Amino acid sequence: MREAYHEELGSIGDTLVEMANLVGSAIGLATTALLDADLKLAENVISADNKIDDLQRDLENRAIAILARQQPVATDLRTVVTSLRMSADLERSGDLAEHVAKLARMRFPAKAVPRDLRRTILEMGQLAQRLMAQAAEVIITQDVEAALQLEKDDDRMDELHRVVFQHLMDKQWHHGVETAVDVTLVGRYYERFADHAVSVARRVIYLVTGEHADETTTEQPTTV
Amino acid sequence: MREAYHEELGSIGDTLVEMANLVGSAIGLATTALLDADLKLAENVISADNKIDDLQRDLENRAIAILARQQPVATDLRTVVTSLRMSADLERSGDLAEHVAKLARMRFPAKAVPRDLRRTILEMGQLAQRLMAQAAEVIITQDVEAALQLEKDDDRMDELHRVVFQHLMDKQWHHGVETAVDVTLVGRYYERFADHAVSVARRVIYLVTGEHADETTTEQPTTV
Repeated sequence: MREAYHEELGSIGDTLVEMANLVGSAIGLATTALLDADLKLAENVISADNKIDDLQRDLENRAIAILARQQPVATDLRTVVTSLRMSADLERSGDLAEHVAKLARMRFPAKAVPRDLRRTILEMGQLAQRLMAQAAEVIITQDVEAALQLEKDDDRMDELHRVVFQHLMDKQWHHGVETAVDVTLVGRYYERFADHAVSVARRVIYLVTGEHADETTTEQPTTV
Repeated sequence: MREAYHEELGSIGDTLVEMANLVGSAIGLATTALLDADLKLAENVISADNKIDDLQRDLENRAIAILARQQPVATDLRTVVTSLRMSADLERSGDLAEHVAKLARMRFPAKAVPRDLRRTILEMGQLAQRLMAQAAEVIITQDVEAALQLEKDDDRMDELHRVVFQHLMDKQWHHGVETAVDVTLVGRYYERFADHAVSVARRVIYLVTGEHADETTTEQPTTV
């Protein structure tokens, strides 16, 4: 009985890692679709989001079943509750990757991102994917140091976000308002995606140490 | 023992209602601060968000204590888990109200919203506040019909969001890129705020019926 129970708990961890891997890939592919105006790739990301939603629903049902049948206490209880929250972060990250892909689709065959911002948006997309890969690793290793490092690495996302706003506010901006709106939203999607990766890492810190990381610093003001 | 336990469950419901009331007021005040460039009001909304965060943390601790000590099953278990999720929705709504207030503060003494969008943004702010008041009521009454009505009422938010984008995309837009960026973000904040109110209502539907509402329709594409 106990054996099966710990297997169930472990399989919830596996699902979280699978979700993190899927959303990490999704944001990478969505970024490529956005930068290349690749409609087919965008469609793939959009339809793949169902898989992530299904995984979350399944995880929730299993977590609630564990709570009901096994009535875990102490660390196991914290693990189940924290898993529920992480799965919500990951599901939302998947939505944000889907938003990026939908923007690519909406502007096809035009490119939503102007050439002079391409490099910055590429870096945001790659960083988002990398932060999520770190989050997946942190779920596996429960390594508090690595979780804290992820938070530090997220500072770069805030810098990139500022770069985007500097472009937007530049008197030389000549791409028009539609593109400004697109770029504003895309910048916000990447920033929120990264916030969710940070949130996953913080939840691991909570699991391991029992201490809530200071959550007041998660989100930077979006505008400059 | 049982008596005290149901009191604890009830007090969690009370906290959810209190949170919904606070974030509803916060979005209303933030809207006024935004439209009137009222710095003091904006500061009030920003500092009041701590209260909401504290309520959420406290609620989470109490919910986990109930899970650990009382080991609820069936409906009670579902109530506790759903409460955790609702509190996350409400905490996030508070952040979004704070974002609106921060934008007001950032642009002070200028107004972030141009005159020809004032009426639309006012309606978004009022609708957001009203939807959250409905959500609070749905938490109290557990009324599935009212919860479904809230979802329908949210359609108006999507319409208003489209109106904002029509303004932005209009060739006549003469407010410059900075204002376009501000208006884009504000529109997104209200839309997400309303989504969280809808999400609270859907969680009540789940609690009462055991059925997940179709979640694929929560969020409309942000751009036109």
